[in-house]
Amino acid sequence: MGINSNRVEHFSGLACPETATATATAVTIPLVIAMPPLEVHKVALPQPRTTMQKLRHRLSEIFFPDDPLHKFKNQTLFRKLILGLQFFFPVFQWAPNYSFKLLKSDVISGITIASLAIPQGISYAKLANLPPIVGLYSSFVPPLIYSVLGSSKHLAVGPVSISSLVMGTMLSESVSYSEEPILYLQLAFTATFFAGLFQASLGFLRLGFVIDFLSKATLVGFMAGAAVIVALQQLKGLFGIVHFTSKMQLAPVLSSVFHHRDEWSWQTIVMGVSFLVLLLTTRQISMRRPKLFWISAASPLASVILSTILIVCLKSKVHGIHTIGHLPKGLNPPSLNMLLFHGPYLTLAIKTGIITGILSLTEGIAVGRTFATLKNYQVDGNKEMMAFGLMNMAGSCSSCYVTTGSFSRSAVNYNAGAQTAVSNIIMATTLLVTLLFLMPLFYYTPNFILAAIIITAVIGLIDYWAAIRLWKVDKLDFLACMCSFLGVLFISVPIGLVIAIGVSVLKILLHITRPNTTVLGNIPGTQIYQNLSRYKEAVRVPSFLILAVEAPIYFANSTYLQERILRWIGEEEEWIAANSRSSLKCVILDMTAVTAIDTSGIDTIRELRKILEKRSLKFVLANPVGSVMEKMHQSNILVSFGLEGLYLTVGEAVADISSSWKAQP
Amino acid sequence: MGINSNRVEHFSGLACPETATATATAVTIPLVIAMPPLEVHKVALPQPRTTMQKLRHRLSEIFFPDDPLHKFKNQTLFRKLILGLQFFFPVFQWAPNYSFKLLKSDVISGITIASLAIPQGISYAKLANLPPIVGLYSSFVPPLIYSVLGSSKHLAVGPVSISSLVMGTMLSESVSYSEEPILYLQLAFTATFFAGLFQASLGFLRLGFVIDFLSKATLVGFMAGAAVIVALQQLKGLFGIVHFTSKMQLAPVLSSVFHHRDEWSWQTIVMGVSFLVLLLTTRQISMRRPKLFWISAASPLASVILSTILIVCLKSKVHGIHTIGHLPKGLNPPSLNMLLFHGPYLTLAIKTGIITGILSLTEGIAVGRTFATLKNYQVDGNKEMMAFGLMNMAGSCSSCYVTTGSFSRSAVNYNAGAQTAVSNIIMATTLLVTLLFLMPLFYYTPNFILAAIIITAVIGLIDYWAAIRLWKVDKLDFLACMCSFLGVLFISVPIGLVIAIGVSVLKILLHITRPNTTVLGNIPGTQIYQNLSRYKEAVRVPSFLILAVEAPIYFANSTYLQERILRWIGEEEEWIAANSRSSLKCVILDMTAVTAIDTSGIDTIRELRKILEKRSLKFVLANPVGSVMEKMHQSNILVSFGLEGLYLTVGEAVADISSSWKAQP
Repeated sequence: MGINSNRVEHFSGLACPETATATATAVTIPLVIAMPPLEVHKVALPQPRTTMQKLRHRLSEIFFPDDPLHKFKNQTLFRKLILGLQFFFPVFQWAPNYSFKLLKSDVISGITIASLAIPQGISYAKLANLPPIVGLYSSFVPPLIYSVLGSSKHLAVGPVSISSLVMGTMLSESVSYSEEPILYLQLAFTATFFAGLFQASLGFLRLGFVIDFLSKATLVGFMAGAAVIVALQQLKGLFGIVHFTSKMQLAPVLSSVFHHRDEWSWQTIVMGVSFLVLLLTTRQISMRRPKLFWISAASPLASVILSTILIVCLKSKVHGIHTIGHLPKGLNPPSLNMLLFHGPYLTLAIKTGIITGILSLTEGIAVGRTFATLKNYQVDGNKEMMAFGLMNMAGSCSSCYVTTGSFSRSAVNYNAGAQTAVSNIIMATTLLVTLLFLMPLFYYTPNFILAAIIITAVIGLIDYWAAIRLWKVDKLDFLACMCSFLGVLFISVPIGLVIAIGVSVLKILLHITRPNTTVLGNIPGTQIYQNLSRYKEAVRVPSFLILAVEAPIYFANSTYLQERILRWIGEEEEWIAANSRSSLKCVILDMTAVTAIDTSGIDTIRELRKILEKRSLKFVLANPVGSVMEKMHQSNILVSFGLEGLYLTVGEAVADISSSWKAQP
Repeated sequence: MGINSNRVEHFSGLACPETATATATAVTIPLVIAMPPLEVHKVALPQPRTTMQKLRHRLSEIFFPDDPLHKFKNQTLFRKLILGLQFFFPVFQWAPNYSFKLLKSDVISGITIASLAIPQGISYAKLANLPPIVGLYSSFVPPLIYSVLGSSKHLAVGPVSISSLVMGTMLSESVSYSEEPILYLQLAFTATFFAGLFQASLGFLRLGFVIDFLSKATLVGFMAGAAVIVALQQLKGLFGIVHFTSKMQLAPVLSSVFHHRDEWSWQTIVMGVSFLVLLLTTRQISMRRPKLFWISAASPLASVILSTILIVCLKSKVHGIHTIGHLPKGLNPPSLNMLLFHGPYLTLAIKTGIITGILSLTEGIAVGRTFATLKNYQVDGNKEMMAFGLMNMAGSCSSCYVTTGSFSRSAVNYNAGAQTAVSNIIMATTLLVTLLFLMPLFYYTPNFILAAIIITAVIGLIDYWAAIRLWKVDKLDFLACMCSFLGVLFISVPIGLVIAIGVSVLKILLHITRPNTTVLGNIPGTQIYQNLSRYKEAVRVPSFLILAVEAPIYFANSTYLQERILRWIGEEEEWIAANSRSSLKCVILDMTAVTAIDTSGIDTIRELRKILEKRSLKFVLANPVGSVMEKMHQSNILVSFGLEGLYLTVGEAVADISSSWKAQP
């Protein structure tokens, strides 16, 4: 090259604001000395690091991307202790500054969500085929534990529809509650324990990123599928059907509804549908005017009270309306002795625990993050997992089943002005009063009102706007969404999820297997090189073919890329021959977007260089990123390229190579 | 912005060679007019395409990356017919120009590889637990078919060690050849048929890329593991052991060797080891001096002849030396009637067929490509698959088992000067003569010489240099390699392969899940923005934080990236506070290496913008690639960014934004 020794400062538009100021205020007349006016920058290797250092960096990025120990740096021991306490018990972060004003807001929101939690708790427990009282127990202990351990201020904790549904389905396939109620309860609590253990371990091992593999597209489809099934299953309560399938697929549920038409009770249907319409209307009103959130928040409890009064008044006249019946008074009984750690159903309990655990984690963390973003604070995923896990493990010992942050109640909580996790404590206290004194009032609460409440809740899970958006933006995301929707509807919940995750991962692999390659051209008057087919103003640089590869070069695409690049070269040569332009002399591979390379990729680069050398074409690389540069260095491929084959930018490559051609014509 | 209307041509170093010439020959004094001297380029959307067009493009890249119909464009019908004939039967490409000179080379190389194919054929058939004669049959029909259909000029077709080994193992686990020889043969031919069917379908459906998922790293480990097992298994023949396990794992093989010490025959051991040393020595000589390739090429046949003569001379004195015994004279008998398409073993045959099929494909195509690269011609993967498939299907009907291109024989073929596939025909002709007339000569050929030949062949498969290179360049590739090595050695061949493929795919996912993010700085005096930690000359631009993301933004990393970017911003603000620099005002995200985005990624960008807006930080994107731009456009996210939030380069973003700050101080 030889021109590096003779460097000249050259003018290059606006490099940084300081220069910008200078040029912006005066007419500058830079002198450009002839031949060579270009400065060629060397491509730097990243700083040498040992394997241990790299491994440490890699592991810290995997497990500690949020750098949780950052706050502890340069602090006194006492301060570190306090911070550590605050780290493990977020309650210590906000409790010291807690004020009466905050309490007032929290009391209002706490009572509001309690009025929602009572009917929902009873309904969701029925969805899980559990006794209604378990739903109320589950709205008492877990919120208390979450308020100490959790980092979200707006999360309303309790049972939710999806996990209730999944638990109910998975357990009912092997054990029937009506036949073996004790075993069923034992399995539910054991599954809850394993769900908690799984969640806490994910948090403790900082493996929180596994839930990222449930993409939003997958979840949209999954939720919609589950919602359809749940809503149809509720026709049992709404129509007053007695004999109903415990299966979850579309076909058996529909056949249960229509094959028991003799069991339909018109009184139940009339009242149920009326309340359903009422609930849906209040939901619509609140959705249109967020300020009127309290209408939909209050309507479930109001409907429960109203329908109970109605049944009490009509009980002598109307028969065949199923009611909740007797509920035991008193607080959560301990259930540690009900956990099963052996026997034939252990695998089922573990499987159910893991699936409900991961689903409730996903929902809880997504909800927590949503409201944290609205109020501009951070929710630590791994810490939340620990909190969820511990609260479920504690719950499993106190007659609770799987709980998490509920979207609907958290939204109400947020709208009602909750300021801290104290609203959860207020809610739990309200539940305490209910459990201790108000249980007999639910004796005449009809089942159809629970069905109506569940239908109203799950209809909100069908987000068809999101599905339409997926279709518009990304067809493959839509495919993943539909796979999980149809999988849940027609096969089963776990298989639907697995298919959807498979499609999502396949999509990533497809992008890697067949990456985009583009031909770049120069935008006249600049150093910018851009896609020729996208930028009409970009022009081909004669004698050069500039290719950009838009993916890491891996074993999965190295063969394809080699073929594709050779095809580009062949097409370029044909085009040149057809248009009688100056012949191709140099191929520049823009490596900016090649974010990683493996040994197969390096072999491809080496092969390409060999093949092009045989065709007397120069082959150079532009702007390899750090890790790629490092690997190429380690594999000694750089020796064959030498300094001449590597450039920092495409522009410098073009300038340097064409000036070297001028020098030796 | 408003300055676009007032564009000024600005000087920017060397844009393209034409400009280069101008500046290189004279002192130019460009005038830069004050305020605004910068030109801001708009980020273009890719050309609008319908879903169908996109799907078509995507599918054509997946299935027709080599554009096979390219040659047929703008040709007469007659020419198209000829081209089509040449396309399906590559023999028509080279046959018309075939000359006597080429024939001379082909005859020499054909006879050379035949001398290798005879002993190897017998040995590999024994490796597959098949009668030795099947190995010779397999070196006769398939090469003839390949010479008509195949596109490689140097591939020597016949049975190879890996597929023989895998077939032998998989079939022997269910059926023993010594107990049910007919069933075993039937299964072997059926498996071969399915291997061929699978290969041909992959080629026909243009799914050739599936073999790319067997990365080189995986194959290095797999081959080494298989070689170790095979070599140890040959101790049976080398030591003269009679009772030997049919299992493939390390432990049973070793225990077979050492638990039957009473069966060791010292005469066999002495002669076997001597010949092994001889063969390994000739191999070493040929490896050191490629010109002496014929020494290692001739040594197997020479050893067979020598050892046979030796046994004939010693037969009255030495006992207990196992020989091949009677081999039937005559050509391949038809075996169509031996194919099993029903019964309890069908699944086994299909499974064996698919695994041996994919392994032999991988080997054959890799070998074909290697020699094609050396002689600078192209081998079409999908066409090769069709050729392999048809040749195996034909083979299964003529008493042949799975065949492919053998690395060792192809290397000899290449070195012996083979010019076209005619060398395969010559080899087949030599085999024909052998099968018709020479079979009785092998009666006294001892088994130990076959063992020695196999050991010599498979030792070449242990490529520890490649493993060392993997370790040096890419630790995760090395891990995949070790997984397949140990998996094959201790578990089983298919599971070893599955583990290795799993590790390779996991590596891709890991790269996506935790992508690199870097902070960029300006290299003074240029428009180049590069990694601050890698380029010491790069400097921070005051008030800006320029971040580059080195991966597509997907559901699997969108949460991580959001957290990581916020952490970068937090750290930058701390650094600014600690060093009392000018406060952070703008975050630029360089999207050059973000090669794709999905709906989760778009949500992340939207969230980030919201969060940063709340912190009164400007957030802009630089250089989004075509597909990303398109998705952002479809999702309406661009509306919130507006024109001001998108720049073609980081340099233009910095210049434009800082000049807008100057304008409104």
